[in-house]
Amino acid sequence: MERIPILKMGPFLLVTIQVDLYDRLALNLENDLITMVSKTGARGVLIDISAVSIVDSFMGRILGNIASMSRIMDAETVVVGMQPAVAITLVELGLTLQGVHTALDVEKGMDLLHDKIGPDQLQEQDEEEGPDDRTE
Amino acid sequence: MERIPILKMGPFLLVTIQVDLYDRLALNLENDLITMVSKTGARGVLIDISAVSIVDSFMGRILGNIASMSRIMDAETVVVGMQPAVAITLVELGLTLQGVHTALDVEKGMDLLHDKIGPDQLQEQDEEEGPDDRTE
Repeated sequence: MERIPILKMGPFLLVTIQVDLYDRLALNLENDLITMVSKTGARGVLIDISAVSIVDSFMGRILGNIASMSRIMDAETVVVGMQPAVAITLVELGLTLQGVHTALDVEKGMDLLHDKIGPDQLQEQDEEEGPDDRTE
Repeated sequence: MERIPILKMGPFLLVTIQVDLYDRLALNLENDLITMVSKTGARGVLIDISAVSIVDSFMGRILGNIASMSRIMDAETVVVGMQPAVAITLVELGLTLQGVHTALDVEKGMDLLHDKIGPDQLQEQDEEEGPDDRTE
């Protein structure tokens, strides 16, 4: 498995990380996500890590990278579903996940993104997207 | 990894299959899904198989099982993101995925579920869910 699927859900992208992120998979994910943000004009990226039970500094850096890259592309990143043990490990490792927002689950993460982006901007985007959908 | 995460998105559950479903993982997924449907009162199950490039009769049976179990629990199942090669293989294997609805991607799958369930019933459910959310 060389790629993690990225799901488009309205104005947001959803990624569920279920496997250990080794170098190549992580690089692919970064590339794919940025390409998808650019292609779909997504305003937010949700990363679900509820299946991740072990986190290390590499994983922490990857999450930080994705958030930084997304921000340059005008999309916010929210990490959701973190297990308590993972949060403990992150703090013990001294990783504060700067620039990464967190939420308890996907629903709360979506609410957070909606709050951050604001309903006006989402509506604008829906209007922009309209004609594209019809020409598919 | 013994479990595939199940994400609750409003009245639906979303599962992204990224790994090969061997026996135990498949049984866990069936159990977890049915438990989640029962616990959350979900009206639909979305199974994303965009990362699955090889499908066999076992996988086909698992998808059929999940759909049958969900239907007994009054939830519809939609399989989304099937790769063209997978569709070809399924037909060649003579697997028609009876009782399983399909859609091109998650967004179209959600639209399909919304159509199937009807807006009135979804609204009812939102109202039912309201008090639970407040007591969390």
